[in-house]
Amino acid sequence: MKISIVRNILEANESAAKENREHLDRARVLAVNITSAPGSGKTSLLEATVPGLGAERRCAVIVGDLQTTRDAERIGVLGVEIVQINTEGGCHLTASQVSAALDRLDLDGLSFIFIENIGNMVCPAAFDLGEHARVAMLSVPEGDDKVAKYPTLFQPADAILLNKADLVGVLDYDMNRVRDDLNRINTRAPFIEMSVKTGRGIEEWLAWLRGLQT
Amino acid sequence: MKISIVRNILEANESAAKENREHLDRARVLAVNITSAPGSGKTSLLEATVPGLGAERRCAVIVGDLQTTRDAERIGVLGVEIVQINTEGGCHLTASQVSAALDRLDLDGLSFIFIENIGNMVCPAAFDLGEHARVAMLSVPEGDDKVAKYPTLFQPADAILLNKADLVGVLDYDMNRVRDDLNRINTRAPFIEMSVKTGRGIEEWLAWLRGLQT
Repeated sequence: MKISIVRNILEANESAAKENREHLDRARVLAVNITSAPGSGKTSLLEATVPGLGAERRCAVIVGDLQTTRDAERIGVLGVEIVQINTEGGCHLTASQVSAALDRLDLDGLSFIFIENIGNMVCPAAFDLGEHARVAMLSVPEGDDKVAKYPTLFQPADAILLNKADLVGVLDYDMNRVRDDLNRINTRAPFIEMSVKTGRGIEEWLAWLRGLQT
Repeated sequence: MKISIVRNILEANESAAKENREHLDRARVLAVNITSAPGSGKTSLLEATVPGLGAERRCAVIVGDLQTTRDAERIGVLGVEIVQINTEGGCHLTASQVSAALDRLDLDGLSFIFIENIGNMVCPAAFDLGEHARVAMLSVPEGDDKVAKYPTLFQPADAILLNKADLVGVLDYDMNRVRDDLNRINTRAPFIEMSVKTGRGIEEWLAWLRGLQT
């Protein structure tokens, strides 16, 4: 019984995700779903990404949050269209929530929609939002065991970012362990060491994003 | 429909939680449910707590993990009884999982059972496991906005720990913002600044635990 309920929820989500992707394809807009634990730096990444892509690639942002509008306020100053999804305690975004958000955006002339998911390494992994690319972000202070412990997040990711890489050496962090764990579950996605704070790795990330458009 | 399913799941959990608590009360064992985001330091906290409480307070540990046995292996060397719950992708522990774990533990002469929940700031908040005290742990590198963004975790907590406090100053972190946010939702729980790495705050934490027994 429990399994069939879960399957129904996932099937309904899958169907909404497919519609989102078709809608975005018709509008020629690329959607990128960004997932991580709380505090890894998703909002900071977007603060660097939107200006970094330049005026010729217009962006919009969909931000998921449990309660507050803090992330939306931070991104709002970037001068892009933004839709906040308040999940009221919900632990991940769903494709139907994203569908409602898309209806509130002007897709005309947009290059990218970035979807900042709820900070959670578990639940967002199971829900396709209709994105074209999924990004899973790690952060050095979380420790070097997170790929092994949360493989469902990292296995399907199209790019894996390691943020706060400036803290390697300040904090104990075994990069080889992370690379070994990734080699077991995902050799397809690029692994980009970055620090949004210092700017390291941002160019590699922007180049990867630009490459999605070709 | 969706709401009634959720209510049934929570009601079944509540009933199992009540039974766990009664079972633990009869055995005179205190259960502490430890919640946090991934990588805040729950396992490291237990590595300091079990020896810190001393031989006169015998402990056991129940560890939730999605896939691996890494946390259980780390705690195993402490020489305490340990039960690993593998949730196979599940995003939180449930009272019935804890009930099954309790059946595998010898409660006789135990003082504390520590339950290390899944690293997740959302879903564990809704599931009473039958614990006597719930602990919510923050970590400085996660940023100073987490109390406001994940209030469902911090509002019901009986103690709030801020780990990696040795990184205040190294990383941007506004302690007043955290205290202000806590003052809005939880003035009941002690707020303990600590660093499991340096030992700061551990004595205050151990004193709080000992106080639960009186």
